[in-house]
Amino acid sequence: MEVENKYVTLKKHIEGAPLESDLEMRSTVLVLTVGEGSDDVIVKNMYVSIDPYQINRMKKYSPSQTAVNFSTRLDVGQAIDAYGIGMVVASNNSAFQKDDMVAGLLGWAEYSIIKGGNMLWKIDSKEFPLSYHGGILGFSGLTAYAGFFNVCKPKKGEKVFVSAASGSVGNVVGQYAKLLGCYVIGCAGTKEKVDLLKDKLGFDDAFNYKEESDLKSTLKRYFPEGIDIYFDNVGAEMQEAAVANMNAFGRVAVCGVISEYLSTNEKRAAPDMLLVVYKRITIQGFLAGDYMDEFANFISTTSDHLRHNRIHVVEDISQGLESIPSAFAGLFRGDNVGKKLVQITQD
Amino acid sequence: MEVENKYVTLKKHIEGAPLESDLEMRSTVLVLTVGEGSDDVIVKNMYVSIDPYQINRMKKYSPSQTAVNFSTRLDVGQAIDAYGIGMVVASNNSAFQKDDMVAGLLGWAEYSIIKGGNMLWKIDSKEFPLSYHGGILGFSGLTAYAGFFNVCKPKKGEKVFVSAASGSVGNVVGQYAKLLGCYVIGCAGTKEKVDLLKDKLGFDDAFNYKEESDLKSTLKRYFPEGIDIYFDNVGAEMQEAAVANMNAFGRVAVCGVISEYLSTNEKRAAPDMLLVVYKRITIQGFLAGDYMDEFANFISTTSDHLRHNRIHVVEDISQGLESIPSAFAGLFRGDNVGKKLVQITQD
Repeated sequence: MEVENKYVTLKKHIEGAPLESDLEMRSTVLVLTVGEGSDDVIVKNMYVSIDPYQINRMKKYSPSQTAVNFSTRLDVGQAIDAYGIGMVVASNNSAFQKDDMVAGLLGWAEYSIIKGGNMLWKIDSKEFPLSYHGGILGFSGLTAYAGFFNVCKPKKGEKVFVSAASGSVGNVVGQYAKLLGCYVIGCAGTKEKVDLLKDKLGFDDAFNYKEESDLKSTLKRYFPEGIDIYFDNVGAEMQEAAVANMNAFGRVAVCGVISEYLSTNEKRAAPDMLLVVYKRITIQGFLAGDYMDEFANFISTTSDHLRHNRIHVVEDISQGLESIPSAFAGLFRGDNVGKKLVQITQD
Repeated sequence: MEVENKYVTLKKHIEGAPLESDLEMRSTVLVLTVGEGSDDVIVKNMYVSIDPYQINRMKKYSPSQTAVNFSTRLDVGQAIDAYGIGMVVASNNSAFQKDDMVAGLLGWAEYSIIKGGNMLWKIDSKEFPLSYHGGILGFSGLTAYAGFFNVCKPKKGEKVFVSAASGSVGNVVGQYAKLLGCYVIGCAGTKEKVDLLKDKLGFDDAFNYKEESDLKSTLKRYFPEGIDIYFDNVGAEMQEAAVANMNAFGRVAVCGVISEYLSTNEKRAAPDMLLVVYKRITIQGFLAGDYMDEFANFISTTSDHLRHNRIHVVEDISQGLESIPSAFAGLFRGDNVGKKLVQITQD
């Protein structure tokens, strides 16, 4: 059986903020069978994840290039791999059967061929909506879990600050922190998001950073007793201000630095290293992929929270492959509230 | 018995690089007896340590003020506490007897009164020259030991870069790293220092940073396989360049940032946080005082190295209390080679 496989690709390398016109739709003909002796798996994609880090692969020079063997630089016209949820339509791989629901590294496409079934996992449970496996029970959730528990090493009662706190990772970090008994404040870029953090997600407080002119003073106001943990999704000025307000032995988990993704190479705000020394602060970058041995713990803990309604799921789902360019560009305008997914098919 | 106690103090708060004229000598009359019921200890100072961090206490605003309860801001005219070696001249404290040799927080003075014998230790062994207890077997050595072993967590074979590598801490870090089996390169600011690192201290290589115009390229040349550990004594451009050349899971121990001590608040070079994320780099500030529980290990290990001539001691000793202002100002001109001490008395 042959299908037309539509996919999203890069029209040209991106400088600055991405425009919808930087991406385009293409298609190829795909035969939905896997040859004898191959352990490839063909997946019909249902939900795909839309994440800010993809911008770094779309630049002429990719900062990930020298450091990791995934998320590498994209060429114009190349299919774009991305985390997602789908259904197996063809497999000779003993680990996957036709009609299995799977999660893993799929792509911004209708179908993905997964070489050797690599970076692909079966979704065995139907307890939760499928989309959850693309966010709260997927890599965004793991990023929040490993970043908070393994990198930040939080203790009950500590003061936690989360930036981009209504985003896919930040909102989960804040909720984990509250469940542990931390004091948690988040920042976001609209009143709607700030209200969500305070009214629905249980943050102790939240503020709109766009309404603040001096972030150091802002954080001093919100944390009169200082910050113990800063979960950083934005970098630059906010990171500098957080370090300035940090307590001794404070920890900064650098998950992402979205405010720096779009900037060119000029000097930007950065933490005062004298304070890093005197306060014995640790600033640590991390990637969720290094914490796969925590995956089972993460799923078990988070599923239990979901089962008992202790965690709210905040999803922002657009419909159809064609909506990917606007969904992606929208990330950098702050359009999304919570986990941004695109649903490719209703099947 | 009464003596005139001469001491060095701040004439005015310092902006930018310290001048000898920023410091001045004063004196008070001191009675060399301790009252009944007091556990104070009076010490005749023999060697005092001259360290760059003191500059941060001499500014109008001290960055240490909010973070630590030692090394706090100095007032004009105030006696300046500093690590040193001396002899007990009077004590009612049961832990210290007259004529005991001691190390600890003394001062830039002929005599120091140590309240409660706080931050004071007896030197029991006469195996090594007394001055060693002010450097390699004192806080500089502990800083190198704890910073390298506890903060950097080195493994044999790792590639280690040390800045200010001929300084009091850097030269010891490099020697520990070589003894562990690491590949070690240092940088310094004169040909004499570079030669010392290569010819006497066993560094694999060394370079004069003043002769380099593009530190990123320089480090790429010296570390074609990347840096695993950067022991940072200088901050700013060098830190940025080291992070740019770091391998995945690299560690930066921030011991000091001397290049930033003299600058005002304008934006300075800083690590690229995108690289910190993708390479999962940890940047950690530390203070030796947090590792007092390592002191016994440190002394035992380092004494053993000294006993077997596996570590070279690099000292730079000036004579007389009056030489403190020029010794201190000289630190920021790179005058010292190795541990800078001032010998107050020959007794």
